[in-house]
Amino acid sequence: MNNNDTYSLDNAEGGVCAPAGFSAGGICCGIKAGRIKNDLALIVSDRDCTAAAVLTRNLVKADPVKLTAGRVAAARNGGAAVRAVVANSGNANACTGRQGAENAARMAASAARELGIGESSVLVCSTGVIGQQLDIVAVERVLGRLVASVSRNGNAAAREAIMTTDTRYKEAAVRTEIGGRIVTIGTMAKGSGMIHINMGTMLGFITTDCAISAGMLDAALRESADATYNCVSVDGDTSTNDTLLVLANGAAGNAVIDEKNGDYYCFLAALNDVNTRMAKKIAADGEGAEHLIECVVREAPAAASARRIAKSVISSNLVKAAFFGRDANWGRVLCAMGYSGEQFDSARTGVRFLSSAGTVDVFREGTPLAFDEELARKVLSEDEVTVDITLGSGTSDGKAWGCDLTYEYVKINGDYRT
Amino acid sequence: MNNNDTYSLDNAEGGVCAPAGFSAGGICCGIKAGRIKNDLALIVSDRDCTAAAVLTRNLVKADPVKLTAGRVAAARNGGAAVRAVVANSGNANACTGRQGAENAARMAASAARELGIGESSVLVCSTGVIGQQLDIVAVERVLGRLVASVSRNGNAAAREAIMTTDTRYKEAAVRTEIGGRIVTIGTMAKGSGMIHINMGTMLGFITTDCAISAGMLDAALRESADATYNCVSVDGDTSTNDTLLVLANGAAGNAVIDEKNGDYYCFLAALNDVNTRMAKKIAADGEGAEHLIECVVREAPAAASARRIAKSVISSNLVKAAFFGRDANWGRVLCAMGYSGEQFDSARTGVRFLSSAGTVDVFREGTPLAFDEELARKVLSEDEVTVDITLGSGTSDGKAWGCDLTYEYVKINGDYRT
Repeated sequence: MNNNDTYSLDNAEGGVCAPAGFSAGGICCGIKAGRIKNDLALIVSDRDCTAAAVLTRNLVKADPVKLTAGRVAAARNGGAAVRAVVANSGNANACTGRQGAENAARMAASAARELGIGESSVLVCSTGVIGQQLDIVAVERVLGRLVASVSRNGNAAAREAIMTTDTRYKEAAVRTEIGGRIVTIGTMAKGSGMIHINMGTMLGFITTDCAISAGMLDAALRESADATYNCVSVDGDTSTNDTLLVLANGAAGNAVIDEKNGDYYCFLAALNDVNTRMAKKIAADGEGAEHLIECVVREAPAAASARRIAKSVISSNLVKAAFFGRDANWGRVLCAMGYSGEQFDSARTGVRFLSSAGTVDVFREGTPLAFDEELARKVLSEDEVTVDITLGSGTSDGKAWGCDLTYEYVKINGDYRT
Repeated sequence: MNNNDTYSLDNAEGGVCAPAGFSAGGICCGIKAGRIKNDLALIVSDRDCTAAAVLTRNLVKADPVKLTAGRVAAARNGGAAVRAVVANSGNANACTGRQGAENAARMAASAARELGIGESSVLVCSTGVIGQQLDIVAVERVLGRLVASVSRNGNAAAREAIMTTDTRYKEAAVRTEIGGRIVTIGTMAKGSGMIHINMGTMLGFITTDCAISAGMLDAALRESADATYNCVSVDGDTSTNDTLLVLANGAAGNAVIDEKNGDYYCFLAALNDVNTRMAKKIAADGEGAEHLIECVVREAPAAASARRIAKSVISSNLVKAAFFGRDANWGRVLCAMGYSGEQFDSARTGVRFLSSAGTVDVFREGTPLAFDEELARKVLSEDEVTVDITLGSGTSDGKAWGCDLTYEYVKINGDYRT
């Protein structure tokens, strides 16, 4: 799908502000004691948007997730169109009882008031510690200033405001041509911990000036998430707040995409492009990560099967710890493949490790291969390492992304709340 | 079931040698270069046994697992009765192609020859590194000496021979009365890493002098494993070699148990007793573990549901890292409950942490409670900590056991093979 021969995909600057009609901003309201970095972000469209969301499958959903889910569904059913998203870091507003629900609603209402739009047009996201009440007064105090600060260059302030333990901001944008018009997709996300397949991120925001119906936007987001965000694992934990949102304001002026035609697949290819880049950024910046681990599974009977095996490999603590130790312990790869729930024939399976430093074949057709341990260590010392698996039983392939398990991960998560 | 009011369960010494008619031994054959500890164990019964096994569900099964599965099934279908088990540590004999299968068969044949019994009466287990060929010549060289060394006091030599990264040996024994006869169950196991629900151990051996049919032995082993070994997680990895074996030689002279009568449930209670003790020992000695974490889920609609929630909590890397940091981060507990796949109402849920240092209530009926952070830290600093969860939606309960995620776990697994 993501094929440059068919679709022209040009990298673009500006993150969520890259598409026409979108502005953003970020500010520090002091949610976390002693915090001096931005912790409140706002994305605004100058016109109504269609919206779609992929939300956490965790039974315990944070109140902002419930509010956002309701408003996206209402908008799709003819209710108020979406215009803005307000998001905070430092506090997840999850497991916070009745007061949590009130605070999520107040956060949206306050942003709406300052923006001069309807309350129902504002979505809310939160990320951070679970089980502590949000300091809503601190949020309300700064919202006027935040609204005044939003601009077409505000992506830098916004992308920082959603970071928790992330060490790097994550944004991307892509330009393509749809129906003779230049269409842009922009995005920012925060990742780092409590990240697992079936939502591979805590918060991801996508903006686009593409004209596309809510139904097609939803279809494209789900299809793309399955191959990108849902193929990332940092630590196997699916959070209470995972949210991937897309807002489409139609400012590009293309004919509205309302069926799965060529324009739809072109939009999907562009969406896959930014989402794949973000998925890799999130995995590479997993808490404590020293290496991005990409697992590619080839020659599978189906893409879903290939992805599931790839996810099982990059989710294994033992595989992750081996990568931290630059140890070509391919037995753990076979073991993780074996409990993926997918069928394959190990007698037809091959495994190799590769990176910019070279390629090491370690297993072929059910039998271990002798290999150069020194070369293997060099290959595994690179920042980005690929586990390349061939199953010899089909023509489909799939990818998943993760990171190594390090002392630093344990340190970060042994003392996060206090 | 495990109720001292109904059944008398007396702790006993001697591990796998505690039941009448069983001998054991252990020796160093040097499977791992430079290794000076025992690495080859043997358990022998002086008469024919019925046998049952719970084996790894990993699609990639080590060759000794396949051999053992076949022989246990054959014995149940009227084939040669089981008499002995030979087990090595240091090499898993998994993913080793045709030569691996030959080596597993040679290991059994060599033990049978020295014991003067049929080859089909010997079971084989291996644990250790995946993907390296077993030094079968080294094994064969010492088997004569190993057989000569087996004795009624050989449990100490045997329990050490199955250890890999275990820091402590694991054995237990229990005595009970069945049909007017004293029946004894003994066990030893190795655990430590690559341990997850659906087999909570790499290798576990149970011996008993109870007279019990192969069918009832199989039923009791499966029922007991579901509530004990299958409720342990160290790191979420299900290994290629997981094996839980029970051998029953009938030397106690009780009337053969061949239906689910009172005697069966008495035997099951005794089996649950030793298996629960072993499950906790394995969790407490998880690789790098500083704390045993027990999760108790009460007031659930069904025991299976309670266990599944408990397993999800003790399997969460974030929960495990929080326990390492002695951090009462109960939000992560709620989060892990939420992605367990089970339904519950968080508005009726309560969470408390307890240990020998006290009790801290942290969450009740959907709302966070204010609590004494200093007391919480004291409670979480004990070697054994319990997360006690009430769901308020039934009368069933379930338990699971795990350990914290530590720097040491990462260190051990970042450099295990090389």
